[in-house]
Amino acid sequence: MQRDPRYRTDSPDGADELQRRIIGEFPLARHIGIVVESAQDSGVVLSAPLALNANHNGTAFGGSLFCVAVLTGWAWVTRYLAVRQVIADAVIQESTIRYLAPVQGALRATLNAPPAEQIEKFRKMLRRAGRGRIRLHVDIHCGQVVATQFDGVFAAAIERRTALCLES
Amino acid sequence: MQRDPRYRTDSPDGADELQRRIIGEFPLARHIGIVVESAQDSGVVLSAPLALNANHNGTAFGGSLFCVAVLTGWAWVTRYLAVRQVIADAVIQESTIRYLAPVQGALRATLNAPPAEQIEKFRKMLRRAGRGRIRLHVDIHCGQVVATQFDGVFAAAIERRTALCLES
Repeated sequence: MQRDPRYRTDSPDGADELQRRIIGEFPLARHIGIVVESAQDSGVVLSAPLALNANHNGTAFGGSLFCVAVLTGWAWVTRYLAVRQVIADAVIQESTIRYLAPVQGALRATLNAPPAEQIEKFRKMLRRAGRGRIRLHVDIHCGQVVATQFDGVFAAAIERRTALCLES
Repeated sequence: MQRDPRYRTDSPDGADELQRRIIGEFPLARHIGIVVESAQDSGVVLSAPLALNANHNGTAFGGSLFCVAVLTGWAWVTRYLAVRQVIADAVIQESTIRYLAPVQGALRATLNAPPAEQIEKFRKMLRRAGRGRIRLHVDIHCGQVVATQFDGVFAAAIERRTALCLES
Protein backbone atom coordinates (compact mmCIF):
# COMPACT_ATOMS: atom_id res chain seq x y z
CA MET A 1 0.00 0.00 0.00
CA GLN A 2 1.45 3.32 -1.13
CA ARG A 3 1.25 6.16 1.34
CA ASP A 4 1.30 9.72 0.21
CA PRO A 5 4.75 10.83 1.39
CA ARG A 6 3.52 14.42 1.73
CA TYR A 7 1.03 13.43 4.38
CA ARG A 8 1.83 12.06 7.79
CA THR A 9 -1.02 11.40 10.18
CA ASP A 10 1.05 12.27 13.22
CA SER A 11 -1.34 14.90 14.52
CA PRO A 12 -4.67 13.70 15.86
CA ASP A 13 -6.73 15.31 13.12
CA GLY A 14 -4.16 16.01 10.40
CA ALA A 15 -4.45 19.78 10.84
CA ASP A 16 -0.69 20.26 11.27
CA GLU A 17 0.13 18.40 8.08
CA LEU A 18 -2.55 20.21 6.10
CA GLN A 19 -1.08 23.48 7.38
CA ARG A 20 2.36 22.47 6.09
CA ARG A 21 0.97 21.39 2.73
CA ILE A 22 -1.08 24.54 2.15
CA ILE A 23 1.84 26.84 2.96
CA GLY A 24 4.22 24.67 0.94
CA GLU A 25 2.04 24.20 -2.11
CA PHE A 26 0.39 27.64 -2.37
CA PRO A 27 2.89 30.43 -1.68
CA LEU A 28 0.15 33.07 -1.63
CA ALA A 29 -1.41 31.29 1.37
CA ARG A 30 1.46 32.57 3.51
CA HIS A 31 0.58 36.17 2.66
CA ILE A 32 -3.07 35.48 3.42
CA GLY A 33 -2.03 34.04 6.77
CA ILE A 34 -3.97 30.78 6.42
CA VAL A 35 -4.38 28.80 9.64
CA VAL A 36 -5.86 25.29 9.64
CA GLU A 37 -7.90 25.35 12.83
CA SER A 38 -9.27 21.81 12.58
CA ALA A 39 -9.50 19.03 10.03
CA GLN A 40 -11.57 15.89 10.38
CA ASP A 41 -13.67 13.63 8.16
CA SER A 42 -16.72 15.54 9.36
CA GLY A 43 -15.42 18.96 8.41
CA VAL A 44 -12.61 21.48 8.14
CA VAL A 45 -12.14 24.98 9.54
CA LEU A 46 -9.59 27.42 8.14
CA SER A 47 -9.05 31.03 9.13
CA ALA A 48 -6.99 34.09 8.23
CA PRO A 49 -6.48 37.39 10.04
CA LEU A 50 -8.33 40.46 8.81
CA ALA A 51 -5.21 42.63 8.91
CA LEU A 52 -3.56 40.82 5.99
CA ASN A 53 -6.78 40.68 3.98
CA ALA A 54 -8.53 43.98 4.55
CA ASN A 55 -9.60 46.43 1.92
CA HIS A 56 -9.53 50.20 2.42
CA ASN A 57 -12.87 50.02 4.24
CA GLY A 58 -11.38 47.77 6.91
CA THR A 59 -13.46 44.77 5.84
CA ALA A 60 -12.28 41.59 4.16
CA PHE A 61 -11.29 41.74 0.47
CA GLY A 62 -13.58 39.52 -1.64
CA GLY A 63 -10.58 37.87 -3.27
CA SER A 64 -9.18 36.87 0.11
CA LEU A 65 -12.55 35.43 1.16
CA PHE A 66 -12.55 33.35 -2.01
CA CYS A 67 -9.00 32.13 -1.35
CA VAL A 68 -9.81 31.05 2.20
CA ALA A 69 -12.97 29.27 1.02
CA VAL A 70 -11.35 27.46 -1.90
CA LEU A 71 -8.44 26.33 0.29
CA THR A 72 -10.95 25.01 2.82
CA GLY A 73 -12.54 22.84 0.14
CA TRP A 74 -9.13 21.76 -1.16
CA ALA A 75 -8.11 20.86 2.39
CA TRP A 76 -11.13 18.63 2.93
CA VAL A 77 -10.61 16.71 -0.33
CA THR A 78 -6.86 16.46 0.16
CA ARG A 79 -7.22 15.16 3.70
CA TYR A 80 -9.98 12.72 2.70
CA LEU A 81 -7.66 11.14 0.12
CA ALA A 82 -4.45 11.33 2.11
CA VAL A 83 -5.73 9.58 5.22
CA ARG A 84 -6.81 6.75 2.91
CA GLN A 85 -3.23 6.54 1.59
CA VAL A 86 -4.29 7.74 -1.87
CA ILE A 87 -1.86 9.84 -3.91
CA ALA A 88 -3.90 12.44 -5.74
CA ASP A 89 -4.13 16.04 -6.80
CA ALA A 90 -7.31 17.98 -6.14
CA VAL A 91 -8.20 21.08 -8.13
CA ILE A 92 -11.13 23.47 -8.24
CA GLN A 93 -13.20 23.23 -11.45
CA GLU A 94 -15.91 25.82 -10.93
CA SER A 95 -17.46 27.75 -8.11
CA THR A 96 -19.99 30.32 -7.12
CA ILE A 97 -19.50 32.76 -4.26
CA ARG A 98 -22.05 35.12 -2.71
CA TYR A 99 -21.08 38.04 -0.52
CA LEU A 100 -24.03 38.62 1.79
CA ALA A 101 -22.49 40.89 4.42
CA PRO A 102 -19.09 42.48 5.06
CA VAL A 103 -16.62 40.49 7.16
CA GLN A 104 -15.26 42.79 9.84
CA GLY A 105 -13.11 40.34 11.77
CA ALA A 106 -11.07 37.21 11.12
CA LEU A 107 -11.95 35.31 7.94
CA ARG A 108 -13.15 31.99 9.38
CA ALA A 109 -14.34 29.37 6.87
CA THR A 110 -16.28 26.28 7.86
CA LEU A 111 -16.92 23.24 5.71
CA ASN A 112 -19.23 20.50 6.90
CA ALA A 113 -18.72 17.24 5.03
CA PRO A 114 -21.32 16.58 2.32
CA PRO A 115 -23.89 13.81 2.76
CA ALA A 116 -22.43 10.29 3.01
CA GLU A 117 -23.97 9.19 -0.30
CA GLN A 118 -22.14 11.96 -2.16
CA ILE A 119 -18.84 11.01 -0.57
CA GLU A 120 -19.50 7.35 -1.47
CA LYS A 121 -20.20 8.31 -5.08
CA PHE A 122 -16.93 10.28 -5.17
CA ARG A 123 -15.01 7.32 -3.73
CA LYS A 124 -16.46 4.91 -6.31
CA MET A 125 -15.70 7.26 -9.22
CA LEU A 126 -12.10 7.53 -8.08
CA ARG A 127 -11.70 3.80 -7.62
CA ARG A 128 -13.22 2.90 -10.98
CA ALA A 129 -12.01 5.72 -13.21
CA GLY A 130 -9.11 7.26 -11.34
CA ARG A 131 -10.99 10.56 -11.42
CA GLY A 132 -13.84 11.95 -9.40
CA ARG A 133 -15.71 15.18 -8.68
CA ILE A 134 -17.42 16.38 -5.55
CA ARG A 135 -19.38 19.53 -4.70
CA LEU A 136 -18.47 21.20 -1.42
CA HIS A 137 -20.05 24.08 0.45
CA VAL A 138 -18.14 26.55 2.63
CA ASP A 139 -19.59 29.27 4.85
CA ILE A 140 -17.70 32.24 6.24
CA HIS A 141 -19.32 33.78 9.30
CA CYS A 142 -19.07 37.23 10.77
CA GLY A 143 -20.23 36.73 14.35
CA GLN A 144 -23.42 34.68 14.12
CA VAL A 145 -24.18 35.81 10.57
CA VAL A 146 -23.27 33.89 7.41
CA ALA A 147 -21.40 36.58 5.53
CA THR A 148 -20.10 34.58 2.55
CA GLN A 149 -21.38 31.41 0.88
CA PHE A 150 -19.11 29.40 -1.40
CA ASP A 151 -20.05 26.39 -3.53
CA GLY A 152 -17.31 24.65 -5.45
CA VAL A 153 -16.84 21.55 -7.55
CA PHE A 154 -13.49 19.92 -6.87
CA ALA A 155 -11.94 17.31 -9.14
CA ALA A 156 -9.35 14.78 -8.06
CA ALA A 157 -7.13 12.63 -10.24
CA ILE A 158 -5.34 9.82 -8.47
CA GLU A 159 -2.35 7.68 -9.24
CA ARG A 160 -3.96 4.46 -10.37
CA ARG A 161 -1.67 2.27 -8.31
CA THR A 162 -3.25 3.78 -5.20
CA ALA A 163 -6.85 3.20 -6.32
CA LEU A 164 -7.06 -0.05 -4.38
CA CYS A 165 -6.76 1.99 -1.20
CA LEU A 166 -10.28 3.21 -1.93
CA GLU A 167 -11.87 -0.22 -1.46
CA SER A 168 -14.56 0.11 1.14
CA MET B 1 -18.61 69.45 -9.32
CA GLN B 2 -16.90 67.16 -6.80
CA ARG B 3 -13.93 65.19 -8.08
CA ASP B 4 -12.85 62.01 -6.44
CA PRO B 5 -9.60 63.08 -4.75
CA ARG B 6 -8.26 59.52 -5.07
CA TYR B 7 -8.41 59.68 -8.84
CA ARG B 8 -6.38 61.91 -11.07
CA THR B 9 -6.71 61.53 -14.79
CA ASP B 10 -3.11 62.49 -15.45
CA SER B 11 -2.28 59.36 -17.41
CA PRO B 12 -3.88 58.97 -20.82
CA ASP B 13 -6.03 56.02 -19.86
CA GLY B 14 -6.03 56.13 -16.05
CA ALA B 15 -3.99 52.94 -15.75
CA ASP B 16 -1.36 54.52 -13.49
CA GLU B 17 -3.94 55.82 -11.05
CA LEU B 18 -5.82 52.53 -11.00
CA GLN B 19 -2.52 50.81 -10.26
CA ARG B 20 -1.96 53.10 -7.27
CA ARG B 21 -5.48 52.60 -5.99
CA ILE B 22 -5.41 48.81 -6.25
CA ILE B 23 -2.09 48.53 -4.42
CA GLY B 24 -3.18 51.12 -1.85
CA GLU B 25 -6.66 49.76 -1.19
CA PHE B 26 -6.02 46.00 -1.36
CA PRO B 27 -2.76 45.10 0.40
CA LEU B 28 -2.91 41.51 -0.88
CA ALA B 29 -2.71 42.83 -4.45
CA ARG B 30 0.94 43.69 -3.83
CA HIS B 31 1.73 40.05 -3.03
CA ILE B 32 -0.17 38.94 -6.13
CA GLY B 33 1.91 41.39 -8.18
CA ILE B 34 -1.05 43.06 -9.89
CA VAL B 35 -0.17 45.19 -12.91
CA VAL B 36 -2.77 47.38 -14.64
CA GLU B 37 -1.78 46.99 -18.27
CA SER B 38 -4.50 49.18 -19.74
CA ALA B 39 -7.72 50.85 -18.66
CA GLN B 40 -10.22 52.49 -20.93
CA ASP B 41 -14.00 52.86 -21.22
CA SER B 42 -13.95 49.97 -23.68
CA GLY B 43 -12.12 47.57 -21.40
CA VAL B 44 -9.45 46.82 -18.82
CA VAL B 45 -6.49 44.43 -18.78
CA LEU B 46 -4.76 43.39 -15.56
CA SER B 47 -1.99 40.85 -15.15
CA ALA B 48 0.11 39.15 -12.49
CA PRO B 49 3.26 37.04 -12.75
CA LEU B 50 2.97 33.28 -12.42
CA ALA B 51 5.88 33.05 -9.97
CA LEU B 52 3.96 34.76 -7.17
CA ASN B 53 0.77 32.83 -7.87
CA ALA B 54 1.83 29.31 -8.72
CA ASN B 55 0.73 26.14 -7.01
CA HIS B 56 3.01 23.15 -6.51
CA ASN B 57 2.26 21.99 -10.08
CA GLY B 58 3.71 25.20 -11.50
CA THR B 59 0.33 26.43 -12.74
CA ALA B 60 -1.73 29.33 -11.42
CA PHE B 61 -3.52 28.92 -8.09
CA GLY B 62 -7.30 29.16 -8.55
CA GLY B 63 -7.54 31.71 -5.75
CA SER B 64 -5.04 33.98 -7.48
CA LEU B 65 -6.96 33.71 -10.77
CA PHE B 66 -10.10 34.77 -8.91
CA CYS B 67 -8.30 37.73 -7.31
CA VAL B 68 -6.96 38.98 -10.65
CA ALA B 69 -10.40 38.60 -12.25
CA VAL B 70 -12.32 40.33 -9.46
CA LEU B 71 -9.84 43.21 -9.37
CA THR B 72 -10.24 43.59 -13.13
CA GLY B 73 -13.98 44.01 -12.69
CA TRP B 74 -13.48 46.35 -9.76
CA ALA B 75 -11.03 48.38 -11.85
CA TRP B 76 -13.49 48.84 -14.70
CA VAL B 77 -16.31 50.01 -12.41
CA THR B 78 -14.02 52.22 -10.36
CA ARG B 79 -12.56 53.90 -13.43
CA TYR B 80 -16.00 54.32 -15.04
CA LEU B 81 -17.20 56.25 -12.00
CA ALA B 82 -14.00 58.14 -11.29
CA VAL B 83 -13.56 59.62 -14.75
CA ARG B 84 -17.12 60.94 -14.39
CA GLN B 85 -16.09 62.65 -11.12
CA VAL B 86 -18.35 60.38 -9.06
CA ILE B 87 -17.26 59.42 -5.54
CA ALA B 88 -18.30 55.83 -5.01
CA ASP B 89 -17.29 52.47 -3.63
CA ALA B 90 -17.66 49.38 -5.77
CA VAL B 91 -17.89 45.91 -4.27
CA ILE B 92 -18.39 42.41 -5.60
CA GLN B 93 -21.78 40.90 -4.71
CA GLU B 94 -21.65 37.47 -6.29
CA SER B 95 -19.68 35.68 -8.94
CA THR B 96 -19.14 32.44 -10.77
CA ILE B 97 -15.76 31.27 -11.99
CA ARG B 98 -14.96 28.34 -14.28
CA TYR B 99 -11.51 26.86 -14.61
CA LEU B 100 -11.34 25.37 -18.10
CA ALA B 101 -7.60 24.81 -18.49
CA PRO B 102 -4.48 25.34 -16.37
CA VAL B 103 -2.73 28.69 -16.68
CA GLN B 104 0.97 28.03 -17.22
CA GLY B 105 2.20 31.58 -17.73
CA ALA B 106 1.32 35.09 -16.59
CA LEU B 107 -2.22 35.56 -15.27
CA ARG B 108 -3.63 38.03 -17.81
CA ALA B 109 -7.25 39.08 -17.35
CA THR B 110 -9.25 40.89 -20.01
CA LEU B 111 -12.56 42.67 -19.53
CA ASN B 112 -14.47 44.04 -22.48
CA ALA B 113 -17.05 46.61 -21.50
CA PRO B 114 -20.62 45.28 -21.39
CA PRO B 115 -23.18 46.40 -24.00
CA ALA B 116 -23.99 50.11 -23.97
CA GLU B 117 -27.56 49.55 -22.81
CA GLN B 118 -26.36 47.77 -19.68
CA ILE B 119 -23.95 50.57 -18.87
CA GLU B 120 -26.76 53.09 -19.43
CA LYS B 121 -29.04 51.17 -17.06
CA PHE B 122 -26.27 51.16 -14.44
CA ARG B 123 -25.76 54.91 -14.86
CA LYS B 124 -29.47 55.63 -14.46
CA MET B 125 -29.78 53.45 -11.35
CA LEU B 126 -26.88 55.29 -9.76
CA ARG B 127 -28.25 58.70 -10.62
CA ARG B 128 -31.76 57.96 -9.39
CA ALA B 129 -31.14 55.74 -6.38
CA GLY B 130 -27.50 56.33 -5.50
CA ARG B 131 -26.92 52.61 -5.96
CA GLY B 132 -26.51 50.40 -8.98
CA ARG B 133 -25.43 46.94 -10.06
CA ILE B 134 -23.72 45.73 -13.19
CA ARG B 135 -22.67 42.28 -14.42
CA LEU B 136 -19.16 42.06 -15.83
CA HIS B 137 -17.35 39.25 -17.62
CA VAL B 138 -13.60 38.62 -17.41
CA ASP B 139 -11.56 36.08 -19.38
CA ILE B 140 -8.10 34.85 -18.51
CA HIS B 141 -6.21 33.40 -21.45
CA CYS B 142 -3.35 30.95 -21.62
CA GLY B 143 -1.90 31.53 -25.07
CA GLN B 144 -4.87 31.58 -27.43
CA VAL B 145 -7.07 29.50 -25.11
CA VAL B 146 -9.61 30.90 -22.66
CA ALA B 147 -8.44 29.20 -19.47
CA THR B 148 -10.68 30.90 -16.90
CA GLN B 149 -14.10 32.54 -17.23
CA PHE B 150 -15.36 34.89 -14.52
CA ASP B 151 -18.80 36.47 -14.24
CA GLY B 152 -19.41 38.90 -11.42
CA VAL B 153 -22.11 41.27 -10.26
CA PHE B 154 -20.61 44.49 -8.89
CA ALA B 155 -22.54 46.97 -6.80
CA ALA B 156 -21.68 50.62 -6.39
CA ALA B 157 -22.97 53.08 -3.83
CA ILE B 158 -22.24 56.71 -4.54
CA GLU B 159 -22.13 59.83 -2.48
CA ARG B 160 -25.42 61.49 -3.40
CA ARG B 161 -23.89 64.91 -3.84
CA THR B 162 -21.96 63.51 -6.81
CA ALA B 163 -25.00 61.92 -8.48
CA LEU B 164 -25.46 64.94 -10.71
CA CYS B 165 -22.18 64.07 -12.38
CA LEU B 166 -24.00 61.12 -13.92
CA GLU B 167 -26.29 63.28 -16.02
CA SER B 168 -25.95 62.19 -19.62
